[in-house]
Amino acid sequence: MKNLKGLSISYENQTLKILDQCLLPLKEEWIEIHKPSEMVEAIKKLKVRGAPLIGVAAALSLAKFALEGASETEFLNAAEDLRSSRPTAVNLMFAIDKLTKFENGFNLKEIVSKAEQFFLEDIELCERISTHGEKLIADGDNVLTHCNTGGLATAGSGTALGVIKKAFENGKNIHVFVDETRPLLQGGRLTTWELEKCGIPYTLICDNMAASLMAKGKINKVIVGADRIATNGDFANKTGTYSLAVSSFYHRIPFYCAAPYTTIDFSCKNGQDIPIEMRNAREVRGVSGFFGEIIWAPIRSEVYNPAFDVTPFQLVSAWIFEKGVVEVPQGTSSGLNLGL
Amino acid sequence: MKNLKGLSISYENQTLKILDQCLLPLKEEWIEIHKPSEMVEAIKKLKVRGAPLIGVAAALSLAKFALEGASETEFLNAAEDLRSSRPTAVNLMFAIDKLTKFENGFNLKEIVSKAEQFFLEDIELCERISTHGEKLIADGDNVLTHCNTGGLATAGSGTALGVIKKAFENGKNIHVFVDETRPLLQGGRLTTWELEKCGIPYTLICDNMAASLMAKGKINKVIVGADRIATNGDFANKTGTYSLAVSSFYHRIPFYCAAPYTTIDFSCKNGQDIPIEMRNAREVRGVSGFFGEIIWAPIRSEVYNPAFDVTPFQLVSAWIFEKGVVEVPQGTSSGLNLGL
Repeated sequence: MKNLKGLSISYENQTLKILDQCLLPLKEEWIEIHKPSEMVEAIKKLKVRGAPLIGVAAALSLAKFALEGASETEFLNAAEDLRSSRPTAVNLMFAIDKLTKFENGFNLKEIVSKAEQFFLEDIELCERISTHGEKLIADGDNVLTHCNTGGLATAGSGTALGVIKKAFENGKNIHVFVDETRPLLQGGRLTTWELEKCGIPYTLICDNMAASLMAKGKINKVIVGADRIATNGDFANKTGTYSLAVSSFYHRIPFYCAAPYTTIDFSCKNGQDIPIEMRNAREVRGVSGFFGEIIWAPIRSEVYNPAFDVTPFQLVSAWIFEKGVVEVPQGTSSGLNLGL
Repeated sequence: MKNLKGLSISYENQTLKILDQCLLPLKEEWIEIHKPSEMVEAIKKLKVRGAPLIGVAAALSLAKFALEGASETEFLNAAEDLRSSRPTAVNLMFAIDKLTKFENGFNLKEIVSKAEQFFLEDIELCERISTHGEKLIADGDNVLTHCNTGGLATAGSGTALGVIKKAFENGKNIHVFVDETRPLLQGGRLTTWELEKCGIPYTLICDNMAASLMAKGKINKVIVGADRIATNGDFANKTGTYSLAVSSFYHRIPFYCAAPYTTIDFSCKNGQDIPIEMRNAREVRGVSGFFGEIIWAPIRSEVYNPAFDVTPFQLVSAWIFEKGVVEVPQGTSSGLNLGL
């Protein structure tokens, strides 16, 4: 397999490594992934995260497994374990489906070529999404984003954050407001770190402050990623996205969803068909990270902790895909028009 | 001064104590307050918090100071220090104004009597607010609340949480959804603790999950407190309240504000006149509490951290005062009608 290098994943000299995102922004530590079961663990523990990136990461770990002599059965079992490591991420399903659909039997060359292709295509996808999306950002805009959708979530520059980075690279004077993104703080820990790496000015906020910033006229655009998009345009994304969409709608602020086309799940007619992963109550009872685990709520408190929520297409100003920007015609009730 | 005892403040045998709310729910530790400067510190560090309670706490510490022989100058200086310890809390200003407006010169008996009155009146206020408000809660309701507005925020049973507690006491089968209330987690740490003390079933959520629960039809009512109410009905309350109000409005869910009448600041015509305290960036960069201080964001990250936000009267279904429930007539543009 070729040498491949992203902001948070690399395959070099037969060694597969991921940047341990649980340690950011405190430490930049790369960990070696020897076999798919380690990648399953890394995905479950969010050491590697972001819908596009985990698709790429799963593909690379499977290709490496095959290269090291896994049998067809071992390969297929590992693929199934990877598939169930993050049930909402459709890119992961897509990657697993593609790698396990052998065109010429169980074939090393084909598997490796597909894994390489996933990596390189993801970079290209980010570039094209960013190029289309950045046209929506004006010089002087204050842009709010949620979670992390950058080089820590993709093999390339990112989706929603890729758009922001491209606008900045193109010389637009922008400021980013970063939702901290409770409970796992991907905004507070990761997006802040990535924006600092890029030299882009930002302000970190608690998620519950976004609406009042909107009321003060401090937010011009909101841009988020997606974990899964139904064919009508409803989409699942990090918990808290829907709240932002409602606030944007109320304040008449453009609300954009940026994602690769593969995020669309053609088996989901609308958002109600998207399965939502429920996560551990401890994430809401406190916080855990490089500092250990801290619980501040009563230890037996009942908790609601969906990893994602669903935003209906009516609240979306436009979807930004690698193929272009899709808007909902005003007054429509039919949602996303996929005729790109 | 009489012996006085609340859930989180007591004056017994010349000893003034507060329950250190920074240690909840891990530890229930009472700390003795010897002089007003210690109460200033306790207010600033949020060991004692909640707009009504800090008014009572300031009054008791001033009365104790006078009883122990403070001169008029010392008394007035201490009063000014207390006044500036929490600039948004109008109840505090009201308490300080009343205690420093001597009707018969600097007079111990008058000061003590006023401080006692603050304490006892606050209990009575809570009782009356709760009794009026609980009529708005139906059997079987799921009620969402923000921050802590109970016996940890008042000398009595509370305002918004008092209403919830009264509905439960009256046999209504209710369930409470508790916003954790970033950054200081008064919901996650304090409201959960208080609801457990009362045996009221609750579910803790991150603030950004409220809107998606509303979309699923899981929330029937939202009830919050207020730190300051302008004469038109706009009100300042814990940061995140406005976001809830917008989401409630969008989902057509009744949104109530419960507070004592003294929360109205007649010098504020509308919400823009209410000063908003900006707090330390470190609160948003991480979390601090009984477990120490943890920073998860980049150490120099720029942060926006207003203690409060302002909700305009248009988003309020009704205000619950001790004198009764005030609704905004549909289609009005004039806001709160104070003709109670």
